[in-house]
Amino acid sequence: MSRPSRLIGVGTGPGDPDLLTIKAKKAIEAADVIAYFAKQGRAGNGRAVVQHLIGPETELLPLYYPVTTEIEKSEVLYQSQITAFYDSSAAVVAAYLDAGKTVAVLSEGDPMFYGSYMHLHVRLADRYPTEVIPGISAMSGCWSLAGMPIVQGDDVLSVLPGTMAEAELTRRLGDTQAAVIMKVGRNLPKIRRALEAAGRLGQAVYVERGTMANAAMLKLAERPEGDAPYFSLVLVPGWEANR
Amino acid sequence: MSRPSRLIGVGTGPGDPDLLTIKAKKAIEAADVIAYFAKQGRAGNGRAVVQHLIGPETELLPLYYPVTTEIEKSEVLYQSQITAFYDSSAAVVAAYLDAGKTVAVLSEGDPMFYGSYMHLHVRLADRYPTEVIPGISAMSGCWSLAGMPIVQGDDVLSVLPGTMAEAELTRRLGDTQAAVIMKVGRNLPKIRRALEAAGRLGQAVYVERGTMANAAMLKLAERPEGDAPYFSLVLVPGWEANR
Repeated sequence: MSRPSRLIGVGTGPGDPDLLTIKAKKAIEAADVIAYFAKQGRAGNGRAVVQHLIGPETELLPLYYPVTTEIEKSEVLYQSQITAFYDSSAAVVAAYLDAGKTVAVLSEGDPMFYGSYMHLHVRLADRYPTEVIPGISAMSGCWSLAGMPIVQGDDVLSVLPGTMAEAELTRRLGDTQAAVIMKVGRNLPKIRRALEAAGRLGQAVYVERGTMANAAMLKLAERPEGDAPYFSLVLVPGWEANR
Repeated sequence: MSRPSRLIGVGTGPGDPDLLTIKAKKAIEAADVIAYFAKQGRAGNGRAVVQHLIGPETELLPLYYPVTTEIEKSEVLYQSQITAFYDSSAAVVAAYLDAGKTVAVLSEGDPMFYGSYMHLHVRLADRYPTEVIPGISAMSGCWSLAGMPIVQGDDVLSVLPGTMAEAELTRRLGDTQAAVIMKVGRNLPKIRRALEAAGRLGQAVYVERGTMANAAMLKLAERPEGDAPYFSLVLVPGWEANR
């Protein structure tokens, strides 16, 4: 083998190609194989962001999810299907690594922060030389775009999934200086009620499509009722003192 | 004025120059003035990371803190001194902006996430065209270096300052899936006790100097007793299922 194979988890950031790190750019340009998770027949958001960096010699390895719609993730059937999918994806990537290839796995945002890459990482990192290249998370892209100081000094930041029960969400929003609510989507009406009950609705900002060209951002209190895209976020800034 | 002046908060990431974003690199190369906070007589960590990008024509604007040692931040004297310092720093930067210069303010890690830049941002962003370029946070640099999946699925992440009272820290560590504890320093013995009381000590990882060349990382339970550098972190991973 002329050089050691390597598994690299590459964070592709929140959507703007210029928000990739220099290290990620180098890793993508140098990789033998670019792997990425995507819905069947789609290019994958992570790949679109780095498309201009992928050379003609580089092999593309799409890993297509077995399910195309959001189904209830607590279901046993979903869990076993998705586990089998990650197992077989890891086996496919391992075959490339065994053949001496360096495989860069694209991961939107930051790989270890709710990233899809970690499903491969936990299956392969103990067997192959592995590197994780951090990326700008969606939440960081959003608060930067919003020009919103999110935390300062001794602030506590709570990152909360919008899927959580309303009472629990209300309790946690009342027990933190700053909050980021992920997985907004159809949970938005519930999130709005929880923010109101916790007395934080007036500060909350709703951000849609983070650093994409068509980003939208407004005070949540001024947004019409109704659902939101899955990849929208709600930010509640913590820092108000020292101005 | 030949072109509009602009204030840019630039995240310089956790320490590795290759973990700068492409956007940050371009902004630093194009700026008329590079401003940065530093201790008196020091170069500033943010500046060291980007030194190779600063051209000979670029003006350097160090903003030296009035205090050189860690004094109690709750003291009234400290608060009024530091507020006066940020006010005068903002006035200096504003003078450059009024002269038509573009000023890039370096901020270690991510500017809006506990970053020093936000003290200028809140004083100037309503008066000048402003842009914030996110950076890789120290915590993200650390969990990537550690190869540690920090959160997945519906995990809650709590970012907690190590300065917090022990009982409060213990309560919050028992009420979250994942945690990042900042401002470790001389709070380390207290943090260790709180983790133990919350039943999380076994999972906790201690990281010193994140992505610096001389980084150190080990299980907190295996680290000797005693204080730690101020810029060390403790990570408690949330994700354990789905492997």
